[in-house]
Amino acid sequence: MNTSPIKVTIWNENVHEKTNPAVQKLYPDGLHGTLAKKLASPELAIHTATLDEPEHGLTQDVLNNTDVLLWWGHAAHDRVVDSIVARVQQRVWDGMGIIALHSAHMSKIFRALNGTSGKLHWREVGEKERLWVIDPSHPIAAGLPEHFELPYEEMYGEPFMIAGDAKVILMSWFEGGEIFRSGFTLQRGNGKMFYFRPGHETFPSFYDPNVIKVIANAIRWARPAAFMPYPKTHVPEALENISPKDFDFGKAGIVRE
Amino acid sequence: MNTSPIKVTIWNENVHEKTNPAVQKLYPDGLHGTLAKKLASPELAIHTATLDEPEHGLTQDVLNNTDVLLWWGHAAHDRVVDSIVARVQQRVWDGMGIIALHSAHMSKIFRALNGTSGKLHWREVGEKERLWVIDPSHPIAAGLPEHFELPYEEMYGEPFMIAGDAKVILMSWFEGGEIFRSGFTLQRGNGKMFYFRPGHETFPSFYDPNVIKVIANAIRWARPAAFMPYPKTHVPEALENISPKDFDFGKAGIVRE
Amino acid sequence: MNTSPIKVTIWNENVHEKTNPAVQKLYPDGLHGTLAKKLASPELAIHTATLDEPEHGLTQDVLNNTDVLLWWGHAAHDRVVDSIVARVQQRVWDGMGIIALHSAHMSKIFRALNGTSGKLHWREVGEKERLWVIDPSHPIAAGLPEHFELPYEEMYGEPFMIAGDAKVILMSWFEGGEIFRSGFTLQRGNGKMFYFRPGHETFPSFYDPNVIKVIANAIRWARPAAFMPYPKTHVPEALENISPKDFDFGKAGIVRE
Amino acid sequence: MNTSPIKVTIWNENVHEKTNPAVQKLYPDGLHGTLAKKLASPELAIHTATLDEPEHGLTQDVLNNTDVLLWWGHAAHDRVVDSIVARVQQRVWDGMGIIALHSAHMSKIFRALNGTSGKLHWREVGEKERLWVIDPSHPIAAGLPEHFELPYEEMYGEPFMIAGDAKVILMSWFEGGEIFRSGFTLQRGNGKMFYFRPGHETFPSFYDPNVIKVIANAIRWARPAAFMPYPKTHVPEALENISPKDFDFGKAGIVRE
Repeated sequence: MNTSPIKVTIWNENVHEKTNPAVQKLYPDGLHGTLAKKLASPELAIHTATLDEPEHGLTQDVLNNTDVLLWWGHAAHDRVVDSIVARVQQRVWDGMGIIALHSAHMSKIFRALNGTSGKLHWREVGEKERLWVIDPSHPIAAGLPEHFELPYEEMYGEPFMIAGDAKVILMSWFEGGEIFRSGFTLQRGNGKMFYFRPGHETFPSFYDPNVIKVIANAIRWARPAAFMPYPKTHVPEALENISPKDFDFGKAGIVRE
Repeated sequence: MNTSPIKVTIWNENVHEKTNPAVQKLYPDGLHGTLAKKLASPELAIHTATLDEPEHGLTQDVLNNTDVLLWWGHAAHDRVVDSIVARVQQRVWDGMGIIALHSAHMSKIFRALNGTSGKLHWREVGEKERLWVIDPSHPIAAGLPEHFELPYEEMYGEPFMIAGDAKVILMSWFEGGEIFRSGFTLQRGNGKMFYFRPGHETFPSFYDPNVIKVIANAIRWARPAAFMPYPKTHVPEALENISPKDFDFGKAGIVRE
Repeated sequence: MNTSPIKVTIWNENVHEKTNPAVQKLYPDGLHGTLAKKLASPELAIHTATLDEPEHGLTQDVLNNTDVLLWWGHAAHDRVVDSIVARVQQRVWDGMGIIALHSAHMSKIFRALNGTSGKLHWREVGEKERLWVIDPSHPIAAGLPEHFELPYEEMYGEPFMIAGDAKVILMSWFEGGEIFRSGFTLQRGNGKMFYFRPGHETFPSFYDPNVIKVIANAIRWARPAAFMPYPKTHVPEALENISPKDFDFGKAGIVRE
Repeated sequence: MNTSPIKVTIWNENVHEKTNPAVQKLYPDGLHGTLAKKLASPELAIHTATLDEPEHGLTQDVLNNTDVLLWWGHAAHDRVVDSIVARVQQRVWDGMGIIALHSAHMSKIFRALNGTSGKLHWREVGEKERLWVIDPSHPIAAGLPEHFELPYEEMYGEPFMIAGDAKVILMSWFEGGEIFRSGFTLQRGNGKMFYFRPGHETFPSFYDPNVIKVIANAIRWARPAAFMPYPKTHVPEALENISPKDFDFGKAGIVRE
């Protein structure tokens, strides 16, 4: 078993923090700073990165030293450069875990991994959300109560355009009348993804112990056992004898009609 | 029930046909031309399009008049423009069916819909492939025997990097010792996808009646009942009464620590 | 395409109808009688059967003449004979569709098809249920609004112990604070199953047009294209040559350690 | 993390061992005895049980002290008492892992957990089987080569009647021309299942290091974090206020037609 610390990179677009006083007051160190503080543990080696850094702080070297990447974005999805999204996706295919938070449902990387639009219904009035654990045996649900509440959250409602293999761990009930698949896992190549709904920038959800527990559990769950770059591979030699053929495909033209 | 013809667009990169005499001899009308002829039926209104046409022949108007799109590409995946891939993907999300054939497993649209690399092992020696029906009740398997053979094909071997919700209908045995998930379905948004493995350009697989039957069945299966553009939607009014909150999130700063 | 009527058998335990005056008043013809009347259509040939009939009305002959079976049970799951459950399950494996309604989540046939306990949380106070369509492109959702309400229903809450391949079409929001996967599909062998949550015996849900529309859609969706008894099959002759072996397994004893 | 030994019970019907000299010579301690010896590790506390013991050796106490149950059966599926199958299934629902080996595909417990018939095609000539790892990142595949061979095995061929949520980890190529989903996982309730194809009684597959590695990996993977008996639960008190209703369902009779 791997007992070295899990290398975590928390990526945040860090845009609202620069312009919205309410967000500044709530998350003075940025969402990434609060998450880093709340998740701090001897088991984790936490690094942060933001949009405005060179290469968005996601150089090949940073990704090569990341076991699990957290992603929070909202206002600037389009400013994330395609080539860096492709680099992140390749790293997921090789085994890196990724945890997409809240409005990351419309990020390029979320959409690229799901193959879907990521669209949904939403309403921002600060209503009550109750999250139900629907698979209590899943490691991401470890230590959670049967359900827990967030008193003020943005609403996200179904239908949520996600991949068909989304394995749902948490589902939400909203005060205003909607429901939502709030926590689900996917696998893409060798890497694991977890999406977790809460975390609107104007609400204190990242101070909620259950929210932090879910994210901490997901980090441990998403850690790769090993990275396995999967090459497209030409295998010219057959494992079994191949019988002689009466069809010269180099010259072709023999058509069975 | 919809009894009007299904509007089918067969897209082919049409590159090998211009450079390889063996392919020219085998598919003198291009792979798209042979497919159009073999699939011809009063139930289908078939149109073809190729890479070198303006907008690759996939204008918004063409896509708006396509119920099911067939895709064959191999040598020129990178020459397909990203904005047209996005246009095709959006149309799939809205309901258009798509059938990816053979080497389309590395096309941009296949990878975008799966969220994976599409990689696999391969060998091109013209070996025997035997396709087994593993879900005989699926409409795509209608009228097929328990298994059928193609005497000369390129080998594709596992592991095949595809999405976890791939529902496998056909699996292949190869003479040289490999196995492969050769026919599988996915849903992305409102649209259905089918991937079908056979169809290397130097072999006569598109003249095989079982191969054509699978593709014809898949076209009927993938037809959308209706197109449903799914908007990202703001729903400002709640369905239920939302109780007054003691938290002024506009001013924020109340943190439950 | 099959244009003959779909042969539907509506099975009801018909126990509450004999003992509870409220149920008698609400469903004077029994739940099965009301369902038969509400679902009546030239496309359907509807038959009903109840627990107290010989073989519960589910003789081999009745099942052989059933394309889609509806199942409503609650108070008498244990009185359904195991051999008849096995007969129904075999018919599903051969292709018969089955629609399990409401408290059928604890029926022997539901549990046998899911492989799970079928357990859930419940509360019976006649609260509001709002059902959301989460896959609007699915045939079972055809013609439904984005969401619809039932003013008085029993609550069923998560976690709901069902199979992992449950494809969820409808999800419920409950006035009292719970959520639930209220409509999902499964395939077992060649047969399709749909579970639909509403329909408590003391509430008028089976008079609701949207509830009836879901059930009618599900009947059309679950109809088998054909019945395919799947035999366990010995295939003594190999398709390929098998090379001579140096191991006499009849005499055994050669162990590679 | 749980560092105490994993409590493993290896169950074997132990019938062929009593009647077939070839099996006696190959597995003198019984299949269960060989498996116990080959799997022996300080991490595992291994116990064995057989059909002929009282309660088939699967008393409630034995099951309560089992984290992961291995199951090998073939000739005597019908002699396994239903109430003991139900006891095993309940324990799986509560969290116990279960590994079904080879001909256990027709066992009562395999069929009960899948909800399917478990049927397949087969041929017993001692042909070569090559197992391919199709998800190299899965813990059950840890340490395996890309593929490995068993020189003499019974053939199992598709279609294999299993549940739709079977996550396939290994797939087989057979010398005689068939393919098969040879290793797959399921979850039922809180418990995990793994099915693994090899292990015919007249062949030395349980002496093969890769076969043993797969089973050992599966035991570690299937271990429950905790046992969680899931009760069917009445929750009379609502979490939210429920508005007064104008419908007296106790008296019923108000029907919205």
